[in-house]
Amino acid sequence: MTVHLVGAGPGDPDLLTVRALRLIHEADVIVHDRLADERILALASPMAELIDVGKAPGRSTPQEMISALLVHLGLEGRNVVRLKGGDPFVFGRGGEEALALADAGVSFTIVPGITSALAAPAAAGIPVTHRDVARTLTIVTGTCGDGAETPDWPVLAPLLRAGGTIVVLMGVAHRARYARLLIDNGARAGMAVAAIERATRPDQRIVRTTLAELGTTALTNPATIVIGEVVHLGDALVDVTSAATQTR
Amino acid sequence: MTVHLVGAGPGDPDLLTVRALRLIHEADVIVHDRLADERILALASPMAELIDVGKAPGRSTPQEMISALLVHLGLEGRNVVRLKGGDPFVFGRGGEEALALADAGVSFTIVPGITSALAAPAAAGIPVTHRDVARTLTIVTGTCGDGAETPDWPVLAPLLRAGGTIVVLMGVAHRARYARLLIDNGARAGMAVAAIERATRPDQRIVRTTLAELGTTALTNPATIVIGEVVHLGDALVDVTSAATQTR
Repeated sequence: MTVHLVGAGPGDPDLLTVRALRLIHEADVIVHDRLADERILALASPMAELIDVGKAPGRSTPQEMISALLVHLGLEGRNVVRLKGGDPFVFGRGGEEALALADAGVSFTIVPGITSALAAPAAAGIPVTHRDVARTLTIVTGTCGDGAETPDWPVLAPLLRAGGTIVVLMGVAHRARYARLLIDNGARAGMAVAAIERATRPDQRIVRTTLAELGTTALTNPATIVIGEVVHLGDALVDVTSAATQTR
Repeated sequence: MTVHLVGAGPGDPDLLTVRALRLIHEADVIVHDRLADERILALASPMAELIDVGKAPGRSTPQEMISALLVHLGLEGRNVVRLKGGDPFVFGRGGEEALALADAGVSFTIVPGITSALAAPAAAGIPVTHRDVARTLTIVTGTCGDGAETPDWPVLAPLLRAGGTIVVLMGVAHRARYARLLIDNGARAGMAVAAIERATRPDQRIVRTTLAELGTTALTNPATIVIGEVVHLGDALVDVTSAATQTR
């Protein structure tokens, strides 16, 4: 009886880890979220039971119920994969599920995945760190709720001035508010911003803007938002990477 | 003629992405660093040429020569994998290599990998973000040279006070200096620290200390250093994950 907390990566099945792919193949039960990519769920055994614990926005299953479900399935002695978008420990609430399993004496493993915070910029040709341009990388969420807490934006603004990159997950809804907070605390209004919608999926879209314009730039979920000078490097690299991606 | 800039992950071949594994299998040439895991290099075709561009500490190949080599190999029309530890864009200098390839008109792709900054804490049972404990994650390097720049530590100290996790890559050599800078700028001297040596490799070791004691705690390279309250969660989770890992 083992519950595997598995990062599914950003969506492209090719970006699953080898271990994640094997565990998905072998699972008796897969407990997944609303945004799980259909191409990844299709890799499960035809015999596997799929349990969707996040059917609709605003109607997701409470975290305590998900943890209780994982404990229940683990105690039944089934081979369980808890499939989470990106990485289980990067704003994925994997820690809460791991603690619940540990408390119940259910053995578990943690399988890291490629977080969208890194895969989305990479898919846009943006190096999140770069010599002489960016020497720190900070990952935050822009949306409260479902256990995520918004960061202390005034403390983050000096990072942008000191040569840092900030990647905001779940950052669409409140973008006007935090862009304003960053500018009010010293970030340049003209600081480059890129939003990568549906990263690594066939309908991926890259939107370029600035901190001052972010609030009025039309964006749709899910999107990963990159703030920092490194965004300019993506201007040089994105066409080549897109062309190269098409050749594979 | 395509050069693939491929993240090799933290060391365990099971944590390669599916795409990385396929590209390693298919490569005519693999250009790798000193720390490349032997288990991963063994996955290459017996016909593949392996080029080590980082033979010894302090004697690594200059970045300009590596970039020139990749351009040369790409222009020869060979199928090239540039294998980089962790993720190519997280302190991996992938951006510089991508720009050189773009300038030379050589097509390339970027394949993200699991960065040690996430895999190492996960292997120690430490969730780098956690509800009510950590709401930002900042990744930095502790060592100058080879293109990496040390961060502006005084700007980072307030993050620890505001509920942030800091992960330091290449952070062994100068740990006394930056621990002092963090404390002098407001971080708690008793703040929890974990160092994960040789993460995900068979001889992985986890060392627990505090910011005040970090400078005098014996550590060996390569190590990933995690600073923040989340380290305490690892105390609850690490034994279970270790036990579960042994069963696979």
